[in-house]
Amino acid sequence: VERFSFGVDAAFTPRDELLEGVTIAPLTQPVSLGSPVQAAVFRFAPGGRIARHQTTVPQILAVLEGSGEVSGANGIAEAIAAGEAVFLAEDHDVSTRDGLTALIVEGEGLEPFRGPNR
Amino acid sequence: VERFSFGVDAAFTPRDELLEGVTIAPLTQPVSLGSPVQAAVFRFAPGGRIARHQTTVPQILAVLEGSGEVSGANGIAEAIAAGEAVFLAEDHDVSTRDGLTALIVEGEGLEPFRGPNR
Repeated sequence: VERFSFGVDAAFTPRDELLEGVTIAPLTQPVSLGSPVQAAVFRFAPGGRIARHQTTVPQILAVLEGSGEVSGANGIAEAIAAGEAVFLAEDHDVSTRDGLTALIVEGEGLEPFRGPNR
Repeated sequence: VERFSFGVDAAFTPRDELLEGVTIAPLTQPVSLGSPVQAAVFRFAPGGRIARHQTTVPQILAVLEGSGEVSGANGIAEAIAAGEAVFLAEDHDVSTRDGLTALIVEGEGLEPFRGPNR
């Protein structure tokens, strides 16, 4: 059992001008180091955002707490809240007025759940 | 933007005698359908558990809410709580007295974050 933290104290503030008011706490090694996917918890402060950018690999964004808006290729903002996930294989941006904690998993070949129970 | 839910209403109760009082809400397609990893939110009711079993592929269990205990190959129970994760590539079991919600990501080649900020 190898233990590690992904709590607020373990998060870092990335040097990335696309991100405003967002910290990242990784769960996996990055794809750049050979991981099949990378997963991390992104914590958005109120007013935080990830500006529009290209998606280089497919990703799933799953809202763990709070609420916000995601807009994909068509630019139309869609509300998202805890318990909801979006699959993004397109340009997109993410923002929140009140704060948002999301798990993001990304990697080649990743596909969202499309099971029989939905 | 493809949307889906992983909330309580989207979770199912697996037919798996290893699991007691546990529901699963998948985020990805399963590895058996070609996904590089599979990720899901496991919700343990108070007293819920996953009995000891072999780990066929490496997994990361990240506690989103609540608390519980994980024991790995050595059988020693270790307390885990929200914000803490464990990497398991060994036989293990998971239990909780008070209830636990965890993200589990599993797949070949998966490795936990071992970054410079820890």
